Amino acid sequence: MNEKQAFEVIRHALKPRRYEHTKRVVEEATLLAERYGGDIEKIRLAAILHDYAKYRSSVEMRDKVLKDSTLPIALLDYGDELLHSFVGSVFVKQELNIDDEIVLSAIRYHTTGRASMTLEEKVVFLADYIEPGRTFPEAITTRELSKQDLDVACLESLKNTIGYLSNKSIGIYPDTFQAYNDFVIKLKKRGG
Amino acid sequence: MNEKQAFEVIRHALKPRRYEHTKRVVEEATLLAERYGGDIEKIRLAAILHDYAKYRSSVEMRDKVLKDSTLPIALLDYGDELLHSFVGSVFVKQELNIDDEIVLSAIRYHTTGRASMTLEEKVVFLADYIEPGRTFPEAITTRELSKQDLDVACLESLKNTIGYLSNKSIGIYPDTFQAYNDFVIKLKKRGG
Repeated sequence: MNEKQAFEVIRHALKPRRYEHTKRVVEEATLLAERYGGDIEKIRLAAILHDYAKYRSSVEMRDKVLKDSTLPIALLDYGDELLHSFVGSVFVKQELNIDDEIVLSAIRYHTTGRASMTLEEKVVFLADYIEPGRTFPEAITTRELSKQDLDVACLESLKNTIGYLSNKSIGIYPDTFQAYNDFVIKLKKRGG
Repeated sequence: MNEKQAFEVIRHALKPRRYEHTKRVVEEATLLAERYGGDIEKIRLAAILHDYAKYRSSVEMRDKVLKDSTLPIALLDYGDELLHSFVGSVFVKQELNIDDEIVLSAIRYHTTGRASMTLEEKVVFLADYIEPGRTFPEAITTRELSKQDLDVACLESLKNTIGYLSNKSIGIYPDTFQAYNDFVIKLKKRGG
């Protein structure tokens, strides 16, 4: 599937506002890839498709988790917000016949992050958080950090998310705190 | 070891201010045990001994982690603040010959919590957070909650800790996150 086809699929799968968001994520991901590397074609394809399942119903997504052995059942204990990333990567694979693991994992972890993220995962994860349509203060701070250090910016996004969720006593998916600890520990080691 | 002996050991192991804190934790843990149950003698013994290793040096505690196969090596990636609980439970066992797992685990998890905490673990964990010497606003709120619901109060303490640590980009020991998610999910299910 080429970019043009992917954009067409997504334009039909999403509402106009979400489609505009997606275009901004692709732009932002491209900038990040130019700055930090990673496979730019795969990053762009993952960015185009990252919200592919955004408008599937909770019922359909929860059903998919129950039936697909590659999806962790624990997802059902957390907010539906997570489902579209994990289930989306499976739908992209099965419905759009995209088999590339770099693309699929960047879609899968774009909301939660995880420990030991690939460069492509980091870029899509971060681009989704900092695209210029995100105007809350934490996104703006994170965008500034993204110009200096990819890992520091990813950590900033994760700490904001954890702070937000814990403040509301909402469950935090294990991949998210594993990503957080992973960045904290790596940056500490890198700092000496 | 009876209570009187344990208090004597602790009076020598701790500085006076920390000893006063310990006495308040024992009082608070007693109140919680009277309210919520649990083995009150074991809870009191764990509360007396919970900070047994507080003044051991980081070097000694880190060395113990490296040498004792019952202590997770991952502890070394996190703040030294955690070490005194985990290493303390091992020292209490080896130096004071206390073999009771209920007592030892209440000491071990009094800082981090963990998933599926025992009643005795919850009581000591919470008593340490809310004893009247803790005067920061979050402790006062949590103390009020502790009069209504033990699990809600434990969750409040965990969310405060996670918020505090993530705000400072400090690593959060996995047991703490797992405890947090465990309480969130259980309380959600209990709430219907």
